[in-house]
Amino acid sequence: MIDLRGRHFLSTLDFSSGELCAITDLALKIKRDEMHGRLPGKVLSLLFFNPSVRTRVSCESAMARMGGHAITLNPGKDTWNFEHGEGVVMDGNTQEHVKELAPVLSSFCDAIGIRKSELITTGANRAEVTASYDELKQDLFINRFTEFSNKPVINLESNSSHPLQGLADMATLKEEFGEPRGRKYVLTWAYHPKPLPVATPHSQLLAAADLGMDITILRPPGYDLDGEFVEAARNRTGAQGGSLEVTDDIDSAYDGAQAVCAKSWGSLEYYGRFDEEARMKQALKAAWIVDEAKLARTDDAIFMHCLPVRRNVVVTDGVIDSPRSVVLKEAENRLWTVAALLQCLLGG
Amino acid sequence: MIDLRGRHFLSTLDFSSGELCAITDLALKIKRDEMHGRLPGKVLSLLFFNPSVRTRVSCESAMARMGGHAITLNPGKDTWNFEHGEGVVMDGNTQEHVKELAPVLSSFCDAIGIRKSELITTGANRAEVTASYDELKQDLFINRFTEFSNKPVINLESNSSHPLQGLADMATLKEEFGEPRGRKYVLTWAYHPKPLPVATPHSQLLAAADLGMDITILRPPGYDLDGEFVEAARNRTGAQGGSLEVTDDIDSAYDGAQAVCAKSWGSLEYYGRFDEEARMKQALKAAWIVDEAKLARTDDAIFMHCLPVRRNVVVTDGVIDSPRSVVLKEAENRLWTVAALLQCLLGG
Amino acid sequence: MIDLRGRHFLSTLDFSSGELCAITDLALKIKRDEMHGRLPGKVLSLLFFNPSVRTRVSCESAMARMGGHAITLNPGKDTWNFEHGEGVVMDGNTQEHVKELAPVLSSFCDAIGIRKSELITTGANRAEVTASYDELKQDLFINRFTEFSNKPVINLESNSSHPLQGLADMATLKEEFGEPRGRKYVLTWAYHPKPLPVATPHSQLLAAADLGMDITILRPPGYDLDGEFVEAARNRTGAQGGSLEVTDDIDSAYDGAQAVCAKSWGSLEYYGRFDEEARMKQALKAAWIVDEAKLARTDDAIFMHCLPVRRNVVVTDGVIDSPRSVVLKEAENRLWTVAALLQCLLGG
Repeated sequence: MIDLRGRHFLSTLDFSSGELCAITDLALKIKRDEMHGRLPGKVLSLLFFNPSVRTRVSCESAMARMGGHAITLNPGKDTWNFEHGEGVVMDGNTQEHVKELAPVLSSFCDAIGIRKSELITTGANRAEVTASYDELKQDLFINRFTEFSNKPVINLESNSSHPLQGLADMATLKEEFGEPRGRKYVLTWAYHPKPLPVATPHSQLLAAADLGMDITILRPPGYDLDGEFVEAARNRTGAQGGSLEVTDDIDSAYDGAQAVCAKSWGSLEYYGRFDEEARMKQALKAAWIVDEAKLARTDDAIFMHCLPVRRNVVVTDGVIDSPRSVVLKEAENRLWTVAALLQCLLGG
Repeated sequence: MIDLRGRHFLSTLDFSSGELCAITDLALKIKRDEMHGRLPGKVLSLLFFNPSVRTRVSCESAMARMGGHAITLNPGKDTWNFEHGEGVVMDGNTQEHVKELAPVLSSFCDAIGIRKSELITTGANRAEVTASYDELKQDLFINRFTEFSNKPVINLESNSSHPLQGLADMATLKEEFGEPRGRKYVLTWAYHPKPLPVATPHSQLLAAADLGMDITILRPPGYDLDGEFVEAARNRTGAQGGSLEVTDDIDSAYDGAQAVCAKSWGSLEYYGRFDEEARMKQALKAAWIVDEAKLARTDDAIFMHCLPVRRNVVVTDGVIDSPRSVVLKEAENRLWTVAALLQCLLGG
Repeated sequence: MIDLRGRHFLSTLDFSSGELCAITDLALKIKRDEMHGRLPGKVLSLLFFNPSVRTRVSCESAMARMGGHAITLNPGKDTWNFEHGEGVVMDGNTQEHVKELAPVLSSFCDAIGIRKSELITTGANRAEVTASYDELKQDLFINRFTEFSNKPVINLESNSSHPLQGLADMATLKEEFGEPRGRKYVLTWAYHPKPLPVATPHSQLLAAADLGMDITILRPPGYDLDGEFVEAARNRTGAQGGSLEVTDDIDSAYDGAQAVCAKSWGSLEYYGRFDEEARMKQALKAAWIVDEAKLARTDDAIFMHCLPVRRNVVVTDGVIDSPRSVVLKEAENRLWTVAALLQCLLGG
């Protein structure tokens, strides 16, 4: 087992492709065998500033099955309000600084997971704009927390990245293809009523890149992902003989695809000008849904999505319910990959 | 031990009287002996759309004592909003379909419990009317969820049924009477400031029926329980030589009773016309409280209530604090019966 | 190990100084050794009416590490509303009486912790005034609950006391000084934008008293702690040769101090007249912050605070980040002391 003790898991970019493959190989081994009792008495604290289903339940279940325990906190609801600014005179709304919070949780627990995204929303509401995208992608809270934590910090989704989803996608691609290298992987944008975060597509893109796939990012004009992540993906896949292209040509992108991963995200160009984006986006609605006709152009591609997914908006019932849909396997792999990661970070 | 692996526990009507007796006998055995360590590493996910004390704590405690773990989710607060409609274009408020939610939770956990009642409320507020009672009793969410779940689904209280309460009442009646068959059991309506759900009295009624008791449903005109459940109870108790009658004659109902189970519920006839019902109900307030005078007519009856109970509204302090009150034993049996059920559903 | 089975832990005043020292000695032993697996299958229920970080996570983590489990409830959010009045006709907003709640939780769990303070707030808001301080300090809910509980009840912070913080402070003082007896301990009031509870300073004061320290309470006029607790502290420390004085002379208080514990609290004289207090308090802001100049007067004192702390309001960054600050050790000792307490209360 690869030993990652003492490391944080904030972005897959902090790990080599080889390390990430080792974690996902361990995950697939755990899936076949048994994970009971591997982390007896270990405690993981989970801070969810945003809602969650898969992330929270997979983390809690993995810890419980391995003989450990996870504690879920909902900051701002069942805790104090937290501060991360340097030198701040704390006479306002915040009550506890990460300079205390991080070492205190570190002394009570063996690892801390944090989900903090200014972009995740529930229901039909849009996120409030609290800063520019360039500021938000700094992920200040989680990075400041990590600075003061003596125990591994795990990113449960920040503004920039969702590396646990990346691990699950890597495991799924390995499981489906054995050797994903050189296969055509399409990450396609899809219409959605709300401007969604870019963290997940960033980490999904990197997952394909760390496997050396031939990647096509298919998105309409104005919907480029963060260039920093696209370039990192290009370099990582290139290092293994893969390639990366960006296009808005739907037909050619689907042609010959072996994996189609659908995801909606908000336009970074329009970030904060949501009404403008909503008007512009209407024209894209019909053309960008993942449907049977598009899938028919592929080389019998598998269909991937991180979930939750809006049916008949992002993807048709026909595609997601088809035998080529691996979305449930991909979700299940969240459990096995986080179990593997926790063993690598905390195992003794 | 009776093996119920792979079954769902949505209603006691899905089980034979014999199977239910086997579960409750196991519960009473566990109560005397020991339940530690029987479900090591097993994980139960609990979805509470409504508040809970007994149900949640008994499930979590039972899992913990048996070496497993329960994860409590509060949908809509710490999760996405869920959809269960077929073929829906999900461009509104809902973000995740049970077609994904159910198999995903199934792959993370060994069983899933769901409390979803449109009729449960907290404090002094009434429930909002979202559909007719006939629609609500379909329990669409939990049934659709179950359709897509690969693991046992446990009803933690729906609009129609509260089968875990039914099991606890069966165990309590067995414990008190040894052989409850042929004893007079009165399920009496009581006044309450709000129109409460019928799920609990339905399952309590069936509990007495599965034990072959001579059942009297005592309620004022306009307060009939759902005929489908009353008929099922009549058939079930009749099959074992018991009987069922419905009356509004308070005195004759209490005469000779050996068990009095009090419960308030809203009028199905008035469902949605709550102000009208409230006015009509005022006249019933004084006459329907369970008090010492009524209990004095009985054959030294035990007093039962599912809890929580509004003291001096549903029942007087004098009755609930008397030695014939078994409400605390009945509540405690929630722990032993759910432990027994979980062993039957998940034990290996 | 000291055997406290069957006792409640509501206030350190219910225990002798010797018993409290035995608990904290055990805590420091556990800190050095190992606490895994000491409470297998034990279940602790935690009722948090108010937010928490340290208390909740330390309790949950301690139980998990010892092989048990803690269940956290947020009354009024995920439960019913509770009643504790005697003989009340419950036709209003409350749905469940502690006469049922306490024995029911007692039958499901091995111990129950309760945090219920009318004075704790989050963010920038002040607490609502629901009663006079003299009424609030009765801690009616927790005391009534305890009356009907068959299992140990642990105070997780009430209006009058926060005994778990007291234990952690005792452990920290023992750890720092070996023999704290006769050393100069200053509990200093500090400015804070909101009127905070007195529960924590009461228990901190008693912690120093149970160790026989020479205590100085440093506070501005109008900020006396509850006389009942001050007198108890005076008697307790006096019984061991220590002393207690109350002063508003900042310089003389700091002179020669070996431990400075900072805490803000609201004026009991002004309780409920918060705007008046806020105006009066402005004049104190600059003079009462714990800063480097004040610490320079001491005999190389350690700096203590219960956390969360408002940096640069209660204490400067320079002091809290200095090597003499033991606030993180003090917080970590919350884990070891609650583990020790739980072993004494529940161990078998």
